[in-house]
Amino acid sequence: MTLGLFPIFLLASVAAAATGMIFRPGVWYAELRKPGFTPPNWAFPVAWTVIYLLSALAAARVAVLPGAGMALALWSAQIALNTLWTPVFFGSRRMGLAMVVMAALLVTVAALAWAFASLNGWAGLMLLPYLAWLGVASALNWRIWRDNPAA
Amino acid sequence: MTLGLFPIFLLASVAAAATGMIFRPGVWYAELRKPGFTPPNWAFPVAWTVIYLLSALAAARVAVLPGAGMALALWSAQIALNTLWTPVFFGSRRMGLAMVVMAALLVTVAALAWAFASLNGWAGLMLLPYLAWLGVASALNWRIWRDNPAA
Repeated sequence: MTLGLFPIFLLASVAAAATGMIFRPGVWYAELRKPGFTPPNWAFPVAWTVIYLLSALAAARVAVLPGAGMALALWSAQIALNTLWTPVFFGSRRMGLAMVVMAALLVTVAALAWAFASLNGWAGLMLLPYLAWLGVASALNWRIWRDNPAA
Repeated sequence: MTLGLFPIFLLASVAAAATGMIFRPGVWYAELRKPGFTPPNWAFPVAWTVIYLLSALAAARVAVLPGAGMALALWSAQIALNTLWTPVFFGSRRMGLAMVVMAALLVTVAALAWAFASLNGWAGLMLLPYLAWLGVASALNWRIWRDNPAA
């Protein structure tokens, strides 16, 4: 029963995901100037559902291994930063501050993928979609911030 | 060096604490009808600073112990729920939904205190201020929600 902790990591992920339901993009986001590589709106909930499930599964997998303290500390940091980003961007609409949160999240998830990979190869691989998506999200946050100085 | 993971748990706590600086109570909160046991405004940042420091220290203490997976999973869940509460209450001003988040947080921190205490007595004790403050915060969220049906 190595995945017995999955429901607890999933609860944390649900708290993070809830921000996307509470702080919706709406008209404000629709009217922002966005770069050509902006994913369509439907891609965001799909990507995040996959990412939250995989990262909770990976955490449950490594949490029972000896020496997982650092990896789980990093998992805690990423889920708090992840929960923070959406209210900052879509709630307070402070895109520069959101960029700071996003940069911290990207560095944390990179360290997390490395820490998970050194405990369990599969757990490390399960974080690659998260890391890839954060690459896109960082570029998007940056461009939208720079291209909409008045928003 | 048993507290080597403290900076990472502190980073997670800083993300949670940032919500209090980004979503401020302001005029909306000042004008709400509040119960007699409402703490003065200055008490909130003082209490949360103590709570975040103690809970990050306790997490760093237990993270290096064998069998800490469940405790650290619960720590992740509490920091995500904690980060979620402020934007929901002060950002979206959905006090009923904030009450749901607060109830989930209270149950999670109660389980966390128990999980920490079973690994290390001091770590369990270090969560008691958090649990006590959440008791006050829950009662406050509930009363403000019920006493301000129009807000």
